[in-house]
Amino acid sequence: MDTVTEALVTSGVTEVTSSLSLLDLVQRGVRVFDLGRPFQKGMPQSPNHPVYTHTLPRRHGDMVRADGGSAANDLIVLGTHVGTHIDALAHVSQDGKLHGGLDAMTEQVGGRFMSGGIHEVAPIVSRGVLLDIPAALGVEACAPAYEVTVADLEKAIEAQKTPVGDGDVVLIRSGWGRRWQDREAYIGAKSGVPGVGAAGAEWLAARKVRAAGADTIAFEHLPAGAGHAQLPAHRILLVEHGINIIETLSLEELAASGVREFVFVLSPLNLVGATGSPVRPLAVVQR
Amino acid sequence: MDTVTEALVTSGVTEVTSSLSLLDLVQRGVRVFDLGRPFQKGMPQSPNHPVYTHTLPRRHGDMVRADGGSAANDLIVLGTHVGTHIDALAHVSQDGKLHGGLDAMTEQVGGRFMSGGIHEVAPIVSRGVLLDIPAALGVEACAPAYEVTVADLEKAIEAQKTPVGDGDVVLIRSGWGRRWQDREAYIGAKSGVPGVGAAGAEWLAARKVRAAGADTIAFEHLPAGAGHAQLPAHRILLVEHGINIIETLSLEELAASGVREFVFVLSPLNLVGATGSPVRPLAVVQR
Amino acid sequence: MDTVTEALVTSGVTEVTSSLSLLDLVQRGVRVFDLGRPFQKGMPQSPNHPVYTHTLPRRHGDMVRADGGSAANDLIVLGTHVGTHIDALAHVSQDGKLHGGLDAMTEQVGGRFMSGGIHEVAPIVSRGVLLDIPAALGVEACAPAYEVTVADLEKAIEAQKTPVGDGDVVLIRSGWGRRWQDREAYIGAKSGVPGVGAAGAEWLAARKVRAAGADTIAFEHLPAGAGHAQLPAHRILLVEHGINIIETLSLEELAASGVREFVFVLSPLNLVGATGSPVRPLAVVQR
Amino acid sequence: MDTVTEALVTSGVTEVTSSLSLLDLVQRGVRVFDLGRPFQKGMPQSPNHPVYTHTLPRRHGDMVRADGGSAANDLIVLGTHVGTHIDALAHVSQDGKLHGGLDAMTEQVGGRFMSGGIHEVAPIVSRGVLLDIPAALGVEACAPAYEVTVADLEKAIEAQKTPVGDGDVVLIRSGWGRRWQDREAYIGAKSGVPGVGAAGAEWLAARKVRAAGADTIAFEHLPAGAGHAQLPAHRILLVEHGINIIETLSLEELAASGVREFVFVLSPLNLVGATGSPVRPLAVVQR
Repeated sequence: MDTVTEALVTSGVTEVTSSLSLLDLVQRGVRVFDLGRPFQKGMPQSPNHPVYTHTLPRRHGDMVRADGGSAANDLIVLGTHVGTHIDALAHVSQDGKLHGGLDAMTEQVGGRFMSGGIHEVAPIVSRGVLLDIPAALGVEACAPAYEVTVADLEKAIEAQKTPVGDGDVVLIRSGWGRRWQDREAYIGAKSGVPGVGAAGAEWLAARKVRAAGADTIAFEHLPAGAGHAQLPAHRILLVEHGINIIETLSLEELAASGVREFVFVLSPLNLVGATGSPVRPLAVVQR
Repeated sequence: MDTVTEALVTSGVTEVTSSLSLLDLVQRGVRVFDLGRPFQKGMPQSPNHPVYTHTLPRRHGDMVRADGGSAANDLIVLGTHVGTHIDALAHVSQDGKLHGGLDAMTEQVGGRFMSGGIHEVAPIVSRGVLLDIPAALGVEACAPAYEVTVADLEKAIEAQKTPVGDGDVVLIRSGWGRRWQDREAYIGAKSGVPGVGAAGAEWLAARKVRAAGADTIAFEHLPAGAGHAQLPAHRILLVEHGINIIETLSLEELAASGVREFVFVLSPLNLVGATGSPVRPLAVVQR
Repeated sequence: MDTVTEALVTSGVTEVTSSLSLLDLVQRGVRVFDLGRPFQKGMPQSPNHPVYTHTLPRRHGDMVRADGGSAANDLIVLGTHVGTHIDALAHVSQDGKLHGGLDAMTEQVGGRFMSGGIHEVAPIVSRGVLLDIPAALGVEACAPAYEVTVADLEKAIEAQKTPVGDGDVVLIRSGWGRRWQDREAYIGAKSGVPGVGAAGAEWLAARKVRAAGADTIAFEHLPAGAGHAQLPAHRILLVEHGINIIETLSLEELAASGVREFVFVLSPLNLVGATGSPVRPLAVVQR
Repeated sequence: MDTVTEALVTSGVTEVTSSLSLLDLVQRGVRVFDLGRPFQKGMPQSPNHPVYTHTLPRRHGDMVRADGGSAANDLIVLGTHVGTHIDALAHVSQDGKLHGGLDAMTEQVGGRFMSGGIHEVAPIVSRGVLLDIPAALGVEACAPAYEVTVADLEKAIEAQKTPVGDGDVVLIRSGWGRRWQDREAYIGAKSGVPGVGAAGAEWLAARKVRAAGADTIAFEHLPAGAGHAQLPAHRILLVEHGINIIETLSLEELAASGVREFVFVLSPLNLVGATGSPVRPLAVVQR
């Protein structure tokens, strides 16, 4: 029994709950933080995935109807792990197995994943917690190639007074998002990239979080120059524990606002059989 | 003092108000209706837009790291007006002008719309209303090529007791969604497609809705065999009134549930300069 | 009198061969038959392959240099078995094996064929022979779903006096190309499509031809309504005999000209690891 | 009896005539030089054009027919100015005009060029001449950012004894092709790239060549660090003189062979309305 319910029960206003609707609260006014990065040509992305491309096959004036109307449209080419995105469980396998022991080779027959694909990820509307690591550590941003430790995570939780647990979405800010405008710096191939390693991932899994996100391209601690030779957090979260990963999040504005707890909303495109989806997640709080 | 607070005050639980946060309500349990259609090869879509294509450039086993880990990924090609999607204002022009009198030719220079593009559409978290037209008319579904009239819209509102107004997102169910599994029937080139015409669009605009959606590919009444020769609702909503349009919605489950009012959430991909975005909108209510 | 002729006169023929160069003959004048179909939106193609798409990401005026210069460019999306194209051996497997007994699963690891791919097909400059089946049969065009028999092939050879043999490229005209402008008719899903069946393919293989082509989408006899349930010619030519197949050829003009023997030139794009390539083959003869 | 045969007859070598056909010469044996580069992920290409991408949407085993047959196929995404390619006249405009004074804005309405597009470029079978500039200059390769002068071109012609003129295709080797395996070096953004400038282009135009090619990405002299700020050769050849340009040619093997004159064959894909085409040109000589 959670504290809210308890309060209501003891005061005997059970019926009240129905009139205190979610919709009423939203209509009173909410603040919506946009946690997605803009998608555009030249944005930082992993070289392992198809480049984001946008073009207008039809522009205004190309075909004008008799009544003076005209439509423009787009063609988009992209990987599902470019820009802000969520990883489906099928994205990663270990020793030939997907999460749940599914055989990776078998599941991908047909050119799409009938199990473990992003179509199995229901839209997320849940508690979200931002763990602001630089704030907890008293720095502006984590250093390149810095491994966010379990102690750091716990320090942030304590400083923020925001325990995390079953079903929560935990977003871990390293401060790396400040480099977004500098493509090479954000990719960080030479410098390495800060993030949680195996220990942090295990810690998150033990808390049974619904999903975990970061403000870097990969939800990983990447040593300088090491590239993607080792991706332990992906293995632990996706394969061993069935926890989705959200990457390339925009967390700077949310962090600056002081908000640490929120309604987290993420609605992946229902791309049947795909290993991920571009997304634009939201943190929603009352005004 | 609004009704919610009043209810609480009269029952003597003033303190509760602060803890009755949006987050609390979400954590008590919400029902999330998925209003998006799955994206897959062969799904019904307009022939005017690039075909949805998905492939796995990398499959498990293609590149296995020394530690036994392997990743699969995707390449997606699509138009932004295929599957469930939202139209940006720049999608349509009339007599060479976009909404606000912007010159359509000028704005598209560079191959993307710096004004009127989908990047200008902030994520939507607002009141949503489903207008169930077949229910109001006492039919299972609107007939092909049926024009949803203002009288129909008002009849639905009265039957449902759900007025619509400033800032609402209005989703108009025609029942056409039942044809989703039959590609040709859903496209309806020969049969025509039900929807609002100019009068319905004007009525929506007069109510200052935030956006309007439908369970058909085009938010329009399409006469049999007429194709897209005339798209008055697009002109009225997008060009004349700056109201975004949402198409190819999945409304059957929501309609069957009896829910008519809800928190509507739609977070378009931030595709800089594009004329629309694929989306997976949500209707959220308390359990 | 040019130098070539002079050489012939003075030298009395033996060495002549070297001075009677290919280049000289070309410069005296050649007729070049274009055997490729135009690639454009909406052209007939197999639904099994990615749709041909062309767009101009950059148009003139999008970026004008200080000196008044401007460039336009293209983005193309296509399958390699759309439009006029050549099949690499890796395109088809039988019982898990590619031509030469290579394991199909093994060869495609990495997402491209390191053996059997189109990159292994050297540009073809060889003798080409057009077998005009309708002419031999005294009809305008083969009927839909007509199987071109061995007797038909031999009848054409006899009528034309053009034996075919080792290293030749044999193009088999069915007359189906007349339907090119009618998309559905050319695809022929309902009607079936004329072409060689197993017997014709075996006959070609026995003659050790370099490649075999047709004026239909698939180099096969397709019964009405049967689709691609059986593709014996592909199996026999590609898998069993290592003979490339050329499809969707434009043969009407060549047939009408009366030319039956020619220099055949086909230069596949060197798409490393791909199963085929779009091409524009040529039949070249002296004027 | 055509003029060639007549000439031969009068010189007394009648028998020779029938065997001296183009086809006969080809069948006696030709050497075919492949002047195209392989297309593959990561190859050097201009950042101004869509990245070459190849994937196998269907692999063997994805759909196995009842008879044990299976097909694999490809999806290709590319710009038409990547890899070895030919520029259509519509690729470049000057002061809003295409070659022939066509209005660039008007011609591109509809999203494709109905005039000046690559579909207007007939397959080329003509005399080709390799001008080996480093050989003429006595160096291994032209220095980065070296401008190939008119004097250089004339020196090569004199050294090679290969005048160039009306209708010839002239391929200018700078030796830059040796850098192909080193992506950054070949692109040469920092170093600059050798090539002809305005003077060389005018010289070629004055000779009325059919097309001109180079072993670099752009048929231009690019000063170090200057990028594509000025592209005079494109303006002169494409816009002012209607001469197609061929880029990213592979000329090292041809140069090493000593062949300087040859039958040049280039068959652009018939991409209706496009500004260029990927190609695999050939230099053909007798063995």
